[in-house]
Amino acid sequence: MDKMRYQKGVDKLMEYTVTDNKEAFTHLKIEENLKDISPDVSRFIIEFTYGDIYTRPGLDNKLRSLVTISSLVTQGTLPQLELHINAGLTAGLKPEEIIETFIQLLSYTGFPRVLNTIEVAKKVFKQKGITVQISEIE
Amino acid sequence: MDKMRYQKGVDKLMEYTVTDNKEAFTHLKIEENLKDISPDVSRFIIEFTYGDIYTRPGLDNKLRSLVTISSLVTQGTLPQLELHINAGLTAGLKPEEIIETFIQLLSYTGFPRVLNTIEVAKKVFKQKGITVQISEIE
Amino acid sequence: MDKMRYQKGVDKLMEYTVTDNKEAFTHLKIEENLKDISPDVSRFIIEFTYGDIYTRPGLDNKLRSLVTISSLVTQGTLPQLELHINAGLTAGLKPEEIIETFIQLLSYTGFPRVLNTIEVAKKVFKQKGITVQISEIE
Amino acid sequence: MDKMRYQKGVDKLMEYTVTDNKEAFTHLKIEENLKDISPDVSRFIIEFTYGDIYTRPGLDNKLRSLVTISSLVTQGTLPQLELHINAGLTAGLKPEEIIETFIQLLSYTGFPRVLNTIEVAKKVFKQKGITVQISEIE
Amino acid sequence: MDKMRYQKGVDKLMEYTVTDNKEAFTHLKIEENLKDISPDVSRFIIEFTYGDIYTRPGLDNKLRSLVTISSLVTQGTLPQLELHINAGLTAGLKPEEIIETFIQLLSYTGFPRVLNTIEVAKKVFKQKGITVQISEIE
Amino acid sequence: MDKMRYQKGVDKLMEYTVTDNKEAFTHLKIEENLKDISPDVSRFIIEFTYGDIYTRPGLDNKLRSLVTISSLVTQGTLPQLELHINAGLTAGLKPEEIIETFIQLLSYTGFPRVLNTIEVAKKVFKQKGITVQISEIE
Repeated sequence: MDKMRYQKGVDKLMEYTVTDNKEAFTHLKIEENLKDISPDVSRFIIEFTYGDIYTRPGLDNKLRSLVTISSLVTQGTLPQLELHINAGLTAGLKPEEIIETFIQLLSYTGFPRVLNTIEVAKKVFKQKGITVQISEIE
Repeated sequence: MDKMRYQKGVDKLMEYTVTDNKEAFTHLKIEENLKDISPDVSRFIIEFTYGDIYTRPGLDNKLRSLVTISSLVTQGTLPQLELHINAGLTAGLKPEEIIETFIQLLSYTGFPRVLNTIEVAKKVFKQKGITVQISEIE
Repeated sequence: MDKMRYQKGVDKLMEYTVTDNKEAFTHLKIEENLKDISPDVSRFIIEFTYGDIYTRPGLDNKLRSLVTISSLVTQGTLPQLELHINAGLTAGLKPEEIIETFIQLLSYTGFPRVLNTIEVAKKVFKQKGITVQISEIE
Repeated sequence: MDKMRYQKGVDKLMEYTVTDNKEAFTHLKIEENLKDISPDVSRFIIEFTYGDIYTRPGLDNKLRSLVTISSLVTQGTLPQLELHINAGLTAGLKPEEIIETFIQLLSYTGFPRVLNTIEVAKKVFKQKGITVQISEIE
Repeated sequence: MDKMRYQKGVDKLMEYTVTDNKEAFTHLKIEENLKDISPDVSRFIIEFTYGDIYTRPGLDNKLRSLVTISSLVTQGTLPQLELHINAGLTAGLKPEEIIETFIQLLSYTGFPRVLNTIEVAKKVFKQKGITVQISEIE
Repeated sequence: MDKMRYQKGVDKLMEYTVTDNKEAFTHLKIEENLKDISPDVSRFIIEFTYGDIYTRPGLDNKLRSLVTISSLVTQGTLPQLELHINAGLTAGLKPEEIIETFIQLLSYTGFPRVLNTIEVAKKVFKQKGITVQISEIE
């Protein structure tokens, strides 16, 4: 195992993690969830996705979240959207920017995928006690 | 027809258009391309997509391009990628940011869709005489 | 806000709505569901999708439902299928035509997406007390 | 080989075929195209898709074309769209109904897939000398 | 109805079925599930998919499961994955080969679809009391 | 750069490469193709996809090709299919097994994606002078 790439991935993941609540230590949760069935998948997530890719210059954490969320809306993978809306907020995306991303996608993915995504965002925002400032975007 | 929404869309489209070369006046080209088969589709693109959506606050032109490109890579619609890589460059995205967006998408869409997209970007960059500053991102 | 387009959309949506039961006033439900997170998305659904598109001549309500259902099966967005199977029935599609649409799609989308759709249709038909007249189609 | 199902499929395919021009005898072309690499695939198209499915009551030829085209637009398989726009016209769909189907799909598939489809329709209509009666739909 | 094709399909389906437990007689369950809404869909599954296709030489039961699972992961149809992971195990795929298939797909479908699939596999393996031999693959 | 992972990837890629003809040295071609626009993408293909994944035990080269081809057919990425049909043949897949994989996928992806894939296979087989032994599979 490549300690340095793995550690870089863990460090980067911590930047997307609020450490004083139940989302803390995302990398430990990923490892725990996969350890009995496929520990190398959690290793690849941390080494490759977070260690090799997310740590690159060129796009900051917020923009990487924006790109990721846009892809997940388009492919309709809702469980990952829940995770990455949370991660995006921690990385500094404003709730209004996330909602505006969904609106931008209406013309490109069609309404159904966006509407299913909004249901996920409603759940995440409610869990975090977030109120969208409607006037800022509409 | 709703003149104001249409005009807002034309004005916004112009911001994504370099007016002193062959890409000038994108809205006229969209209209020309669709006028004999479905003029209302060009009207909806301009009124709804550009007039209603792109003109909203909350995300600037560059971020709307980034979101759009991320969605198009994910769904694999290559002809639109050609248009929106061009539009994104005009809106101020650096070539290196566009390439880095593709790299961020590797983990989410898989390699094949990204590789097909890179072929499109190569063509657009070549047409525009753009050289990617590899050292800035790698 | 464009009152006329919005009102056209509301009027059209009412044609897809049975007003004497729990599905009544779909537009009010859409507004209610989105008002705290993204009211402009509900406005776009009503103004653009129902006000601009569904009101056009060229295809009647039943055919628009058939086209919509075919697209939703193909993309696998099940929550919208529940809504649009309901809407299609209200618009006058026979349950047997909806099932036959699913059968037609077997060769184009493969069996898995059709089978997941049939589970949704079973639920909707049961809620409405609908019995499919098998002899009419098989 | 099941002669009856195969013959039923050939007969049905002939209903989608203009026999006095280059599209004549579609089943012979399908067979010819696949005979050296996978003749059973052409057999399954004719026996299963056309023999078992298209011959069913419940939806007429025009509606089966409409459902098929809607699915192909949504999945973005352009070569089949060329074939099925041709078949739909032969089955009696008006060009204006095909265009209106594309417009109905804007909200469900997004604009990119529809725009790529319209390019295919332009080609087919041009080959057939068809002029869309814009006034009928817009 | 074509008795021979149907019977061939039932016989093949039995090879994917453990007959001494609750998964026994899959064909009866498919028929039961669809009999009130669309019995011909169950007939097509058995006649065409299992009777015509699965019975062919060229690929054995295990390889057909591997191909099927790879397609289902890629399209993200989770209910069918549950069925086909079960069927694959009965056909002789080792749990470790199924997990390794998921890992092979990481580069081609992206991580989200694979992670959602692993959740399904965890559930199936738990129901069957299967422990993955991590050391064999990692 | 991680020399060992990179070298492992190059070695594995060579197993999928016929070295005495124009497909030789695939890794050099991948590097050449991407060196001016995104050299790190070619590095990730070789380090991660071939170095980390393809070298794992659990599935042999032939089965990894089968899984990959099944995914590519399902997502409809034709340029990669051309590459991976070539690679699969080099890894030892028989042409008849590749065709039979396409036939197995008919029920899961629908016919259009399979038919577009067969066109690619026809081209690859013709380039290599391969004749499919129809009698072995049909």
